[in-house]
Amino acid sequence: MALTRAEEVMYSSGAHPRHRHAPEFEEGVAFMFGEYVPVEQAGVPITDTGFMQADGTYDVVSVSKGMFFRLEDHLDRFERGCDLFRMRNPYSRQQMREICENLVRLSGFQDAYVWYGVTRGQMPHTDRNDVNLYECQFYAFVIPYLFIADDQMREKGLALHVSQSYIRIPEHAVDPRAKNFHWMDLKLSLFEARDKGHDWSVLLDVDGNLTECPGANIFFIKDGRICTPANGCLEGITRLATFELAKEVGLELEVGRFHVSALEAADEIFLTSTAGGIIPVGSLGGKPIASNRENAYTRRMHDLYWTKRWAGWHGTPVAYD
Amino acid sequence: MALTRAEEVMYSSGAHPRHRHAPEFEEGVAFMFGEYVPVEQAGVPITDTGFMQADGTYDVVSVSKGMFFRLEDHLDRFERGCDLFRMRNPYSRQQMREICENLVRLSGFQDAYVWYGVTRGQMPHTDRNDVNLYECQFYAFVIPYLFIADDQMREKGLALHVSQSYIRIPEHAVDPRAKNFHWMDLKLSLFEARDKGHDWSVLLDVDGNLTECPGANIFFIKDGRICTPANGCLEGITRLATFELAKEVGLELEVGRFHVSALEAADEIFLTSTAGGIIPVGSLGGKPIASNRENAYTRRMHDLYWTKRWAGWHGTPVAYD
Repeated sequence: MALTRAEEVMYSSGAHPRHRHAPEFEEGVAFMFGEYVPVEQAGVPITDTGFMQADGTYDVVSVSKGMFFRLEDHLDRFERGCDLFRMRNPYSRQQMREICENLVRLSGFQDAYVWYGVTRGQMPHTDRNDVNLYECQFYAFVIPYLFIADDQMREKGLALHVSQSYIRIPEHAVDPRAKNFHWMDLKLSLFEARDKGHDWSVLLDVDGNLTECPGANIFFIKDGRICTPANGCLEGITRLATFELAKEVGLELEVGRFHVSALEAADEIFLTSTAGGIIPVGSLGGKPIASNRENAYTRRMHDLYWTKRWAGWHGTPVAYD
Repeated sequence: MALTRAEEVMYSSGAHPRHRHAPEFEEGVAFMFGEYVPVEQAGVPITDTGFMQADGTYDVVSVSKGMFFRLEDHLDRFERGCDLFRMRNPYSRQQMREICENLVRLSGFQDAYVWYGVTRGQMPHTDRNDVNLYECQFYAFVIPYLFIADDQMREKGLALHVSQSYIRIPEHAVDPRAKNFHWMDLKLSLFEARDKGHDWSVLLDVDGNLTECPGANIFFIKDGRICTPANGCLEGITRLATFELAKEVGLELEVGRFHVSALEAADEIFLTSTAGGIIPVGSLGGKPIASNRENAYTRRMHDLYWTKRWAGWHGTPVAYD
């Protein structure tokens, strides 16, 4: 059973040709302080607390075949993130839509990774503990689409490593429902995974329950039930899409608390991410996944995800020049 | 018993006059990509993982009366932080010393806050999980000295709030011994404190033990013993200096694990920070500190800290133009 070959479509120059764009936007486009600039020239002020103190929230929406995927869901989540972190987005919902579309239009990318975020900006001189004195800043950029796992890795299935050295930052410290810059635990667990010869990592909470992976949610399937953590993780938009796809393929959904031992007994495991959709896992800690079903459900949902997206599912088309 | 009035000395224009500096460096000076630039023009590339993923480590060293304080201790700690986070500092120890001194010299500040950090830089195109493929970047800047609490607040004593809504990011997620950008728990606890009418916050771990405050370590004194957490906190340089001062005033030091209830029963409480030295606490959760000793030990250590610093204690003089 072969996977839909997303990479071929996305990266081969013939398939989704890049639209017209100004030469200075070859690498991508950024929007900051009200202007569109080449992405490699975009600099965040070194004293912005978004840099010095990871004091910001962000989101990433993907574009494939010239269509945003679930743009409104991403904008909804971003609004909730701003509320959770007490940030005031200087732009309205409609302005956000326009900025996102302008970025993609100016870049000409048909397959794109659109990042936008709000930081708390500079520390106020008078009272840095008064949340109302901060003037939040908005930043955004577009670059070519990024895949956590290319076609070959997805075909084979990711080699997943359960981090032994790091736990995920708990929700009572930094709420993961607000997408945030706090990635050190995630990054170091990725390096740990690679050191051991694996591709990606999953982090547990202090009690050994599943939380999330760097930039991805985790799912597993056991006896016709599809399971994913309720807490300690981002409420991913591809995770949300997977809830719909799971219903379509006849799986029963359970969103709850799952000990890592449930993962070890799973029939199928996969990750979901805006950066790559549905990503089959081939091994856990070096051992092949228990099932002899060859990730049958995962593959069906993977292919459904892309074929539906390319047919316009939850899509917002970009008006290119 | 009055405190040594540090602010008068630091901020009154007559006391520590600013040395000669180029007009473009009026606000401060930054060093990045090998050049010295006005701080307000220094921009971190928006796609640097130091911004997008808080993937960096930093340190702050202070200058008072034209002298760095414990510069070598700061550089030691920064080296340990780079090791803990698997960062390669592109500059040598001697180059770091020169950059720090150049920044202060160019700024002309006699009382300064010198920030330097290393980020993991851009995500590699080939394999972002291979730690060796990242090209780490170095950034630094100097601005005028910052006080967590000015003379008036220190004289009165900070109103300290024990955060109810946030726990500190645990050491098994992100090791606080490597000074890092993960500040959201700290920032939100500061806003929570201010909402309740207090000045500063202290965060506990999941078991209710003391960890640290935003940008500061916490100490308390009880029956001639001075106590501070061993774990879950930055190994502060002012904390280290306080160990020496405690000995000088005849206190017995205990570095260990302390439940928040010990704080509630303390005779004296204070914070330590590069941004302000030793900072007396006047109330905890709105209640005055139990002691009727008027923070006698704290005040002695506060005054010792500044008078010794100004006499050259652990000082490295800056060679101004």
